[in-house]
Amino acid sequence: MTQGERGPTIVVSNRGPVTFSLGEDGERDHSRGAGGLVTALNAVVRRGEGVVWIASAQSDEDAAVAKEPAPYEVEDLRVVFVEHDAAAYDLMYNTLANPLLWFVQHGLYDLPRSPRLGDDTREAWESGYVPVNRNFARAVAETVGDSPAPQILLHDYQLYMTPLFVREELEEGVTGAFISLFVHIPWPEPDLWGVLPSYIRKGILESLLSADVVAFHTQGYARNFMQTAARVLGAETDSENGTVRYGGRETWVRAYPISIDPAEFEELAGSEAVLEQEEFVKGLPGKLLLRVDRTDLSKNVVRGFEAYGRMLERHPQMKGEVTFLAQLQPSRGDIPEYAAYVEAVGRTAEEVNEEHGTDDWTPIQLFMMDNFPRSVAAYKNYDALLVNAVRDGMNLVAKEAAVVNEKDGVLVLSEYAGAHEELGEHALTVNPYDLDEQADALHRALTMPDEERKERGDGLRETVMQNTIEDWVETQLKDIEAYRQRNR
Amino acid sequence: MTQGERGPTIVVSNRGPVTFSLGEDGERDHSRGAGGLVTALNAVVRRGEGVVWIASAQSDEDAAVAKEPAPYEVEDLRVVFVEHDAAAYDLMYNTLANPLLWFVQHGLYDLPRSPRLGDDTREAWESGYVPVNRNFARAVAETVGDSPAPQILLHDYQLYMTPLFVREELEEGVTGAFISLFVHIPWPEPDLWGVLPSYIRKGILESLLSADVVAFHTQGYARNFMQTAARVLGAETDSENGTVRYGGRETWVRAYPISIDPAEFEELAGSEAVLEQEEFVKGLPGKLLLRVDRTDLSKNVVRGFEAYGRMLERHPQMKGEVTFLAQLQPSRGDIPEYAAYVEAVGRTAEEVNEEHGTDDWTPIQLFMMDNFPRSVAAYKNYDALLVNAVRDGMNLVAKEAAVVNEKDGVLVLSEYAGAHEELGEHALTVNPYDLDEQADALHRALTMPDEERKERGDGLRETVMQNTIEDWVETQLKDIEAYRQRNR
Repeated sequence: MTQGERGPTIVVSNRGPVTFSLGEDGERDHSRGAGGLVTALNAVVRRGEGVVWIASAQSDEDAAVAKEPAPYEVEDLRVVFVEHDAAAYDLMYNTLANPLLWFVQHGLYDLPRSPRLGDDTREAWESGYVPVNRNFARAVAETVGDSPAPQILLHDYQLYMTPLFVREELEEGVTGAFISLFVHIPWPEPDLWGVLPSYIRKGILESLLSADVVAFHTQGYARNFMQTAARVLGAETDSENGTVRYGGRETWVRAYPISIDPAEFEELAGSEAVLEQEEFVKGLPGKLLLRVDRTDLSKNVVRGFEAYGRMLERHPQMKGEVTFLAQLQPSRGDIPEYAAYVEAVGRTAEEVNEEHGTDDWTPIQLFMMDNFPRSVAAYKNYDALLVNAVRDGMNLVAKEAAVVNEKDGVLVLSEYAGAHEELGEHALTVNPYDLDEQADALHRALTMPDEERKERGDGLRETVMQNTIEDWVETQLKDIEAYRQRNR
Repeated sequence: MTQGERGPTIVVSNRGPVTFSLGEDGERDHSRGAGGLVTALNAVVRRGEGVVWIASAQSDEDAAVAKEPAPYEVEDLRVVFVEHDAAAYDLMYNTLANPLLWFVQHGLYDLPRSPRLGDDTREAWESGYVPVNRNFARAVAETVGDSPAPQILLHDYQLYMTPLFVREELEEGVTGAFISLFVHIPWPEPDLWGVLPSYIRKGILESLLSADVVAFHTQGYARNFMQTAARVLGAETDSENGTVRYGGRETWVRAYPISIDPAEFEELAGSEAVLEQEEFVKGLPGKLLLRVDRTDLSKNVVRGFEAYGRMLERHPQMKGEVTFLAQLQPSRGDIPEYAAYVEAVGRTAEEVNEEHGTDDWTPIQLFMMDNFPRSVAAYKNYDALLVNAVRDGMNLVAKEAAVVNEKDGVLVLSEYAGAHEELGEHALTVNPYDLDEQADALHRALTMPDEERKERGDGLRETVMQNTIEDWVETQLKDIEAYRQRNR
């Protein structure tokens, strides 16, 4: 098969690039989605011709679109919406994917006490996760029709069963289908996978190994995946070549570190909304220490505030000379563990402010709201950026901030953030569990000589510029070609 | 060097085989210690000639013994006590070894929230763990003197730094010293080791790789250790041959599953004390479901009671037909997490008893006290034994109980107990996080046809009898000989 004979490209993710609503005038309206994954996949759409994007219908109007002939065209997009049974979707999303898989893959469980799995887990799997994945696979098969050599690019942890189901659903005449699944969250070591019931861990592994490529953001996750496949299924792995053999098939396991579109952030940095927020940011007293995160248990916000408090204790001369701006986007407030965590975040910030603050100076400026322009304004102006996650698939904030920062700001980076594989050598590395190490790193970052700041800042920027979102797409497309050549 | 030229054998463990006290008559008195490790090491003493056992002084009278010419001889033992500075010992034991290492190695931390490490961790390491280990090493060097080819058998997670320090402390003329360290608790995968500050994880790994043999209870722990050595130190590992090369040395990594002395338990089973308790045990209504554990967070007692409650809900015909006897030995009540856990254990048992109990029948008989004769009486009589730990180095209860049980009792066994590698095929395997799976397994165990019970019971007994504590010692001594032959 030559390159010209390549079939249609299909991107599948739970959340789509666009959502529809009915305007007051009765006209169909739409808005483009944001977020790292959607932005990244937009780059795939730009690179391909006639790429079709399949996603779950999120709104009533999406569901209406789903009933029209597919794909539905809007702007540069060709979209297919999948309508799920509401109860099944709820089980997939709110029982299986977001607490269970997210918690296991980020290591968030307090294992002596939780999770407490049982028949409700099986129900969420069999009546939620599996049928939702089956729906995706059917939508893929319908979209492919009888076209040969389609390229089916599946994304993330809501879709683990889709590779297997696509193989089952594709029409018999369809030859040369290429299937990849990209896991955008961490892949932990085998023992943590053991927390899941065996029918789930085996089901997921068998499905993923029916894909041609399984992709991750880091070499570490890729290595963990191969070890998990060996442990759970007894699959044969070749860690040097990044291949797994199972059931007579070969799957390539690859790391493609996701990135950002630098031009997008440069443009944003000059936008009216950001310039407006910059006045506020520049008005904060002293040097600027920044963090920008969702309020997720994995982000380690509480320990970050505590470390900052310890830094102020040890270096009282820093009082009034620095402000910690924390831009936290509320997330999953309906999960009790998250609600409790958000409370602890607020309480810890108050404690630090009460202990160290003065009439003129609030040590921590905490905002729990969505204000992206203010975050970008802060990206431009921070002296130090704290990313101390206990576990993070990649952390795009570290990359976004590096390209627009104008102060050679220093990155204090957890060794457990995916970004550490690329950016670690230019950052101050911290153990997310060690408060005093983080306190020391913050102090060092805020008092670092200009020359070292510049060297590190240049290093960060260059590293990001050398692997932009375009490179991320390009590398994957090349590997698809290579896989096809080899398996022709 | 021929076998005849082998030097003295020295066993080192934090807790010794004997402890001394001053009787009312002013005479020195002593009592032999119990517990799995001490019992096992007694078997080493029996096998060797003139074995010297070095341990921490635990009592004032131990400290007095420590001041006399060493070794001190009592019964068949030759003992050397090491006196530590009380503050250093406290830091080693109560800050470093028992919360930190124990929690990391059993995966007990609620990682989004704990641990909160810092300078106090460094203090506990530098002023506690390190000097205590240095004391052990000096005692070893003094005991060895200038004897060539000593065999130094170090035991467990309190002594991780001792191998390195022994190499430093041994007199220059001492050639052919063999050093092994046996880790009696789980060795988790590399990512969990990352929770520790890097100076601790590197220090431990470098010290262990200065030993000739590092030993574990399971192949899984041995594999995890090799992966950790590769990740933390970049050591070169050969998983097929079980060797690690680092700093020009080769270390053998081995699994020697610890076991019990069947004769000891057979004798115990006929003892007066046990026969007395048997009346109580046999008086409990219905079939006997048993668990015997320390009240450790890792033992998963709460989920076990909940699973039993679910079993009674689903199979109401079981009510009154079974009693769950839980013999729990209080442990580490001074650690707040443990105190809270013990409370949860009591509360859960009460809930199950209130929901399902009647005037004539208490579903769970919970005893939180030390009563070994009653445990052995129950070993003889259980119909099902629950070992559902979230993580357990080996779990000797499963082995002890199997050899004296008279009812072909069924073992319900967590896949995360070390014993699962040997006994798993004869047990009903459960995922410790899955309540319904455990409920089903309990029901199946309690209603299993006699033939299957017998087959499984025979399998358990034979497996234990094929690897007794004598075999455990024998295999290690053979490997010492093999290591010496190869490295002559």
